[in-house]
Amino acid sequence: MFKTTFNPGPSQISSEVKDDIREAIERKILEISHRSSVFNDFSKFTIDNIRKFFNVPNDYYVFYTSSATEWWELAIKWTVENNMFSFVNWNFSECFAKTCKLIWKNVEIDQVEWWNQNDFLNTNIPTSSEIITIVYNETSTWVRTDSETIKKIRLKYPEKIIAVDIVSIAWVKEFDINNADIWIFSVQKALWLPSWLWIMFVSQKAFEKSIYLWKKWIDIWWYFSFESMQKKMFEKCQTICTPNVLNIYLLWKQLDRFLNKWWVSELKKETLEKYDLIEKFVNNNNIFKFFVKDPKIRSHSVISLEWSEDNIKQAIEKCKTNWIIIWSWYGKIKPKTLRIANFPSIKIDELKFMLECL
Amino acid sequence: MFKTTFNPGPSQISSEVKDDIREAIERKILEISHRSSVFNDFSKFTIDNIRKFFNVPNDYYVFYTSSATEWWELAIKWTVENNMFSFVNWNFSECFAKTCKLIWKNVEIDQVEWWNQNDFLNTNIPTSSEIITIVYNETSTWVRTDSETIKKIRLKYPEKIIAVDIVSIAWVKEFDINNADIWIFSVQKALWLPSWLWIMFVSQKAFEKSIYLWKKWIDIWWYFSFESMQKKMFEKCQTICTPNVLNIYLLWKQLDRFLNKWWVSELKKETLEKYDLIEKFVNNNNIFKFFVKDPKIRSHSVISLEWSEDNIKQAIEKCKTNWIIIWSWYGKIKPKTLRIANFPSIKIDELKFMLECL
Repeated sequence: MFKTTFNPGPSQISSEVKDDIREAIERKILEISHRSSVFNDFSKFTIDNIRKFFNVPNDYYVFYTSSATEWWELAIKWTVENNMFSFVNWNFSECFAKTCKLIWKNVEIDQVEWWNQNDFLNTNIPTSSEIITIVYNETSTWVRTDSETIKKIRLKYPEKIIAVDIVSIAWVKEFDINNADIWIFSVQKALWLPSWLWIMFVSQKAFEKSIYLWKKWIDIWWYFSFESMQKKMFEKCQTICTPNVLNIYLLWKQLDRFLNKWWVSELKKETLEKYDLIEKFVNNNNIFKFFVKDPKIRSHSVISLEWSEDNIKQAIEKCKTNWIIIWSWYGKIKPKTLRIANFPSIKIDELKFMLECL
Repeated sequence: MFKTTFNPGPSQISSEVKDDIREAIERKILEISHRSSVFNDFSKFTIDNIRKFFNVPNDYYVFYTSSATEWWELAIKWTVENNMFSFVNWNFSECFAKTCKLIWKNVEIDQVEWWNQNDFLNTNIPTSSEIITIVYNETSTWVRTDSETIKKIRLKYPEKIIAVDIVSIAWVKEFDINNADIWIFSVQKALWLPSWLWIMFVSQKAFEKSIYLWKKWIDIWWYFSFESMQKKMFEKCQTICTPNVLNIYLLWKQLDRFLNKWWVSELKKETLEKYDLIEKFVNNNNIFKFFVKDPKIRSHSVISLEWSEDNIKQAIEKCKTNWIIIWSWYGKIKPKTLRIANFPSIKIDELKFMLECL
């Protein structure tokens, strides 16, 4: 058992969301059919809330998907005829690029060290690349880009399809959706809901490319094409296979709160306050360092601290005895780094107490 | 709002499961990492319970998957080099066959009318077919087969891979897992849990075929091969992508109850009692008929009644005013049929009251 978790996903859930789940049980939301009018109604509220919260333009499609892997596959399958280009700054961006190889397409990669950010605007992207993939906030390193850069990439390559992963930063909603064609995030990271629901935005341009490829290749009914997904989504807000009904309900309720402007601006303020606390903590001790040295590419949402292997172990143990879950990173940076989710479901006092325990 | 639902999936949830969800909130199960030891522990309990409850042989692998569609794709991708054979007796068996075409393989089909069952043992299956697909309890018509037939198919085609869909009948556990190579079911139908978790059993034979195909075709790391799934599952009982943590927890708890022998035999008895009530109801009135005429191929788990279009409409409305959800079937049999899930989460009195309302 624990009192607070700083794990970036599945992440700490707020008491409001827990109340929503209890309410969902009482309202029998878990027992309704995914083809019923009750489902259609609240799924429509969810989609409407998503559109409002993220200012999704009218000519973009909104879909529910099951996992990042499903999203990677869908995005590549339906927009890449031959070649893709991927910016890779570690694990998740690399997975996206790998998926491309796995479905027998070509992928060119611009790869940087784990604590660095790609030089998006001065990288040579071949004319033949049909799609550019970017991870906005690379959860495996906490290196992040910004909305202005995405806009510049869009202006530099107006003919290409741009796909952006905003997992672990979606709620900040600092994005102009018009500046990319495909956007994706999961609810268990960025929106601190239980695991297993992903949201995907698809531009008209990407949608039309998918129809072109579909006609060229198969021209028979397909379960998970953008077009078949849209047919289910249009009017009834349904999905091809039985979705995670509970999470769709919870997302509606969560975004209802987010759409209260005061609430979101408060959360943003609190997130920055918590980030400042972490920054002060790092500056006031000679032990912990930021894993990402350059503050301009450092995420505020997920933060990675560096220390010696033994001390990281001790810090994790110390937190544990104080009922706090905090983890080291994975892969080869694992032994020497701590990862801290700075999501709004974690209260300022909880963060303060954790920093005292370190 | 409603008091009882006869929808086959997502289906009515028992009060025990609702208590488990409330407990999961308190125990912070929704907030734990899918890579944590807490997850590993209860996921192992879940897998152990599955193995015990279904008597899964030691040389079979057990996997979590996301949806039927994912399962269809996985099963075909990793066992079919060229040719598949599908028994089709309506919607779900047909979807399985269609998936094969979508991934550019050949499929031969034995198709029967919707209320009929395939003649499994006297159908000519080409020598070239590598896999035979069977839907044990076709939820779209309620036509079912039996364990003895599956055994005979196995004995007739010992060299082929046999894949059996036991969605909507899994809990009855009348299967000898040795008699097929791949088995699948979802928790929201057969085990009356919330939606979004599927379980898959894979024999050593099917697993080895997947390695043969993987080496032949790609020989690079793949997200969702049987082998990569097994690597995550072995020891830690984890999944490739973030799973539905809540449902894995609920499945553990549900199977704990099922493993109490008295409980399951009581439920079986009650299911047959409820089926008898429906049979009596049909025999004692001249209005409703069974959609499937032959009692030998009629499922006890999901039942379909036939009537005139107007009367079916009225019956649905009448139930609605009594807070009961009951649906007509879909596709071309929709207007003239009612579907009744006969799952143990629906109590005998609830069924009696529904029949009175018809």
